[in-house]
Amino acid sequence: MESSLQVDVEPRSVVLLLHCPLRIGLAASLTEFVYSSGGRILYHDQYVDPEKRHYFTRLRWDVSGVSATDQEMTNRLRTLIGRDPDSEWALYFSDERPRIAVFVSTDPSCLYDILARCHSGEWTVDVPLIVSNHSALEPVARRFGIDFRVFPITKESKREKEDEQIALLRDHRIDLIILARYMQILSGSFVSAYPNRIINIHHAFLPAFPGARPYHSARERGVKIIGATSHYVTEGLDAGPIIEQDVMRVSHRHSVDHLIRLGRDLEKVVLSRAIWSHVQRKIIVYAGRTVVFD
Amino acid sequence: MESSLQVDVEPRSVVLLLHCPLRIGLAASLTEFVYSSGGRILYHDQYVDPEKRHYFTRLRWDVSGVSATDQEMTNRLRTLIGRDPDSEWALYFSDERPRIAVFVSTDPSCLYDILARCHSGEWTVDVPLIVSNHSALEPVARRFGIDFRVFPITKESKREKEDEQIALLRDHRIDLIILARYMQILSGSFVSAYPNRIINIHHAFLPAFPGARPYHSARERGVKIIGATSHYVTEGLDAGPIIEQDVMRVSHRHSVDHLIRLGRDLEKVVLSRAIWSHVQRKIIVYAGRTVVFD
Amino acid sequence: MESSLQVDVEPRSVVLLLHCPLRIGLAASLTEFVYSSGGRILYHDQYVDPEKRHYFTRLRWDVSGVSATDQEMTNRLRTLIGRDPDSEWALYFSDERPRIAVFVSTDPSCLYDILARCHSGEWTVDVPLIVSNHSALEPVARRFGIDFRVFPITKESKREKEDEQIALLRDHRIDLIILARYMQILSGSFVSAYPNRIINIHHAFLPAFPGARPYHSARERGVKIIGATSHYVTEGLDAGPIIEQDVMRVSHRHSVDHLIRLGRDLEKVVLSRAIWSHVQRKIIVYAGRTVVFD
Amino acid sequence: MESSLQVDVEPRSVVLLLHCPLRIGLAASLTEFVYSSGGRILYHDQYVDPEKRHYFTRLRWDVSGVSATDQEMTNRLRTLIGRDPDSEWALYFSDERPRIAVFVSTDPSCLYDILARCHSGEWTVDVPLIVSNHSALEPVARRFGIDFRVFPITKESKREKEDEQIALLRDHRIDLIILARYMQILSGSFVSAYPNRIINIHHAFLPAFPGARPYHSARERGVKIIGATSHYVTEGLDAGPIIEQDVMRVSHRHSVDHLIRLGRDLEKVVLSRAIWSHVQRKIIVYAGRTVVFD
Repeated sequence: MESSLQVDVEPRSVVLLLHCPLRIGLAASLTEFVYSSGGRILYHDQYVDPEKRHYFTRLRWDVSGVSATDQEMTNRLRTLIGRDPDSEWALYFSDERPRIAVFVSTDPSCLYDILARCHSGEWTVDVPLIVSNHSALEPVARRFGIDFRVFPITKESKREKEDEQIALLRDHRIDLIILARYMQILSGSFVSAYPNRIINIHHAFLPAFPGARPYHSARERGVKIIGATSHYVTEGLDAGPIIEQDVMRVSHRHSVDHLIRLGRDLEKVVLSRAIWSHVQRKIIVYAGRTVVFD
Repeated sequence: MESSLQVDVEPRSVVLLLHCPLRIGLAASLTEFVYSSGGRILYHDQYVDPEKRHYFTRLRWDVSGVSATDQEMTNRLRTLIGRDPDSEWALYFSDERPRIAVFVSTDPSCLYDILARCHSGEWTVDVPLIVSNHSALEPVARRFGIDFRVFPITKESKREKEDEQIALLRDHRIDLIILARYMQILSGSFVSAYPNRIINIHHAFLPAFPGARPYHSARERGVKIIGATSHYVTEGLDAGPIIEQDVMRVSHRHSVDHLIRLGRDLEKVVLSRAIWSHVQRKIIVYAGRTVVFD
Repeated sequence: MESSLQVDVEPRSVVLLLHCPLRIGLAASLTEFVYSSGGRILYHDQYVDPEKRHYFTRLRWDVSGVSATDQEMTNRLRTLIGRDPDSEWALYFSDERPRIAVFVSTDPSCLYDILARCHSGEWTVDVPLIVSNHSALEPVARRFGIDFRVFPITKESKREKEDEQIALLRDHRIDLIILARYMQILSGSFVSAYPNRIINIHHAFLPAFPGARPYHSARERGVKIIGATSHYVTEGLDAGPIIEQDVMRVSHRHSVDHLIRLGRDLEKVVLSRAIWSHVQRKIIVYAGRTVVFD
Repeated sequence: MESSLQVDVEPRSVVLLLHCPLRIGLAASLTEFVYSSGGRILYHDQYVDPEKRHYFTRLRWDVSGVSATDQEMTNRLRTLIGRDPDSEWALYFSDERPRIAVFVSTDPSCLYDILARCHSGEWTVDVPLIVSNHSALEPVARRFGIDFRVFPITKESKREKEDEQIALLRDHRIDLIILARYMQILSGSFVSAYPNRIINIHHAFLPAFPGARPYHSARERGVKIIGATSHYVTEGLDAGPIIEQDVMRVSHRHSVDHLIRLGRDLEKVVLSRAIWSHVQRKIIVYAGRTVVFD
């Protein structure tokens, strides 16, 4: 809905992502707040989890006619929303371009797809940095003029190398990390530095076939459908909140190599949909699951 | 392809399902055999597993112009195909209507769907018997005039009741057993009495969410796609060769009850496709997987 | 979302379906109205068409604690909503069971599916009447104990027969008419007697292949995907507002008969999803299109 | 199936694509021919159109152990296959890399996707030339070091410019032309110079919404599913043989811009699957339709 409004000269806007225990009148207060401050609502979606009585909303409004500063708006919202320990919210202004680091190993498919979307103008994000445990994809980075850093990681060096990576990510003011077929498991302490800000693509329909070599497992089990899953990274392997999944039909005629080839397209599309939902600020994580607004 | 030939007065035909180690010239021998005996090929599909060098074929021909008896044809084929311990084959004549027993508990959806297909003429099969561990669906059986037998099963009585069931199935000359949401696990000895002739519908995308309450697990895990899987029953729970699967997209907005409601349609369609493939003699099981011809 | 609340002893509830030109504060007024009258919101979804600045909402609330009568609630809402010529709304109370007439010709698939859903308790609707231009499906009606009326229609008798049909529908207090593969085009005057209350299933992915024999056209054109479309009936053939569509992959291997067989399952599922959305009061028609809430 | 054999040092192989009126014994003659010449069959698929009694086959074999020259093999096959006016066949050797020209206008998505697949080694093809009626995508060509030629085309200059384009294509020994969102209709004489060797991507589910602005039409009609179609280009606009199609669900919430954004991913995937099937020599065109082998 909102994308129709993004064309050409789009006014400055802000997205509020909020979840909290269900409270009567909150939605009305929020819309009232927007209108009274001179804003124009561009998008408003809400969801109530009926079992947990928990409220989720995404509200986006045009702030070009708002006289209050961003800080003043934030302060007023803080008062309005209040403090509940089971509540979280944030404002995202449209002129803050997300800064993304892509982590890769040797498979270039997802990386190419991400860079093409950035450079074609399809996505309004910056990718200043590519990190790898392998030098294979350096030519791709060079083709697009992006900083490429190799961190060969061994069991012994992992802690140290991850610290270097985090320092580098901070230097580049990275908001979001994409694991684009990065064949290296991140430690819990790395993950906790970027909560719900690391997106991985797993080449299977989770929770089926977690771990390595899922296409081999799929072939072995004789499934008739294969899939791909993008999720936020948590400490548990392939157990983080699922953002997006997709599948395609296969048959006994598909060898493992054929499955891998077909799966690559799934992975690209599923990963890019997840990234796009994240940078559009459409995702709220709660209780190990995602709410993804349209 | 062959269904276009089944309309109206269809001539008598036979299906050969065969798998064996790859042998050069076998396909040519089989087609030569059909032509020389006066048959007309209606369908011929083949598949070679390139890793195992194993050959699978489905050959269907019009036998209305064949002068040899069914037994003579069978004998000649036996000579032609030979005996390999890793080989299996069978002939299925079109005037042998498969006889199906449906096992149910309390959910009528799949049962209604199966009976509607049989009574509308969509399927050319007979369903002379419905078996249940519960009396809930007796009215459905009565509506369609089908014998309905209740076997309440406890841990202690299981062996005895299963023996009675098998005797009943034999009395009814049952070829194929459908577990249409039958909430009772069959013992290994029951299963071995009907190898690759018991089809179950599991209400999840196997191997994700085996066992009971998969929709609860799916909701809990926050998957974005749910599925259903039909498979031949083996001793391992939900581990038998997969025949057919299908999926549909869901979101955080779907409660467990909503998932169950949506999943019911998946289950019906996936189960019925599997039954249809089986009775059309399109499925070969080998190495724990199925080859399902088009 | 709401279905989780329908289990067991569900309290009496009401659905408001409303569309009108976008008006600031209306949503807040509506929720305020519900709370102040003692209601408890079970579901609230809204949509704004950004081009037309038109507002759509579905609001469902528990009225078991509301002291006002239904008529009083309706009156207050009338005042609150006001009168705009481009506005429409209605209240649907949960204890009014929709009464459905099914129109058929000779294909029993959709009819069986509808009746199974009603008799298994999956749907809380009544089907007191089946209308046909052919006697072929009378045994199906008899099996379920439903009144079956045959109206053989010729060009000359059409007007008269349709008048008789409408009289019959009124006698049965029919709310919704389902054309379940009814091979007869309704006249404009019949259609206008049941605006947005006649649902048809078309056996193709509209707007591709309108009219008769779409599977033949699909085969001829060599499409790789076939579909089915359910829509409200308007005067233009197969041009009414689309409610639901679904598709499946096919290939050159599928004959017309095979496409018809596969398509039948699509038709059943797509039609039943449309009916369910309608009776759940999830559909608003505006400007020739539908808004279908989740 | 064959892709499992392409890994690492793959032996030289050849693909035979053949269609002809059904002739008994031809399949056996072809396999016999391969074995007797020292070849090893890697893939064999066949299809008979049961209505037209027309035979289609794709046969691929390892020629590394064949002593005959390519020309000798071709000659023997010519004798074996014979000449039927309704027959066509060709041999494609694995060491002939297809040479592709991509025609574009201003949308870079499909172009980036094609170039990424070529440069990542996913496809074994060469893209020596990009042709456009616009200079917008020159930076993309430069990034990948590919010759980029602009032909601004007016009604008056079309004939002349197309002649220049054909000369250029011949200079580059182009085998296959991809219209990757090329916003210019090719003349009949251009098309006839590359029969079944020009692949277009249409951003809709043909035959629904041919012509320009299909997403606007889809939104206007209120469809619940959008699609993309890749097809060989013939003189009739968007009427050529369909190679591949895919779809995705949408709803009233999707604006035209949102549909365009979602559709872009469909277009990329559908176009690339069609190109891959073509360069793998898996497609036979007959009677305005395609047979696409697995």
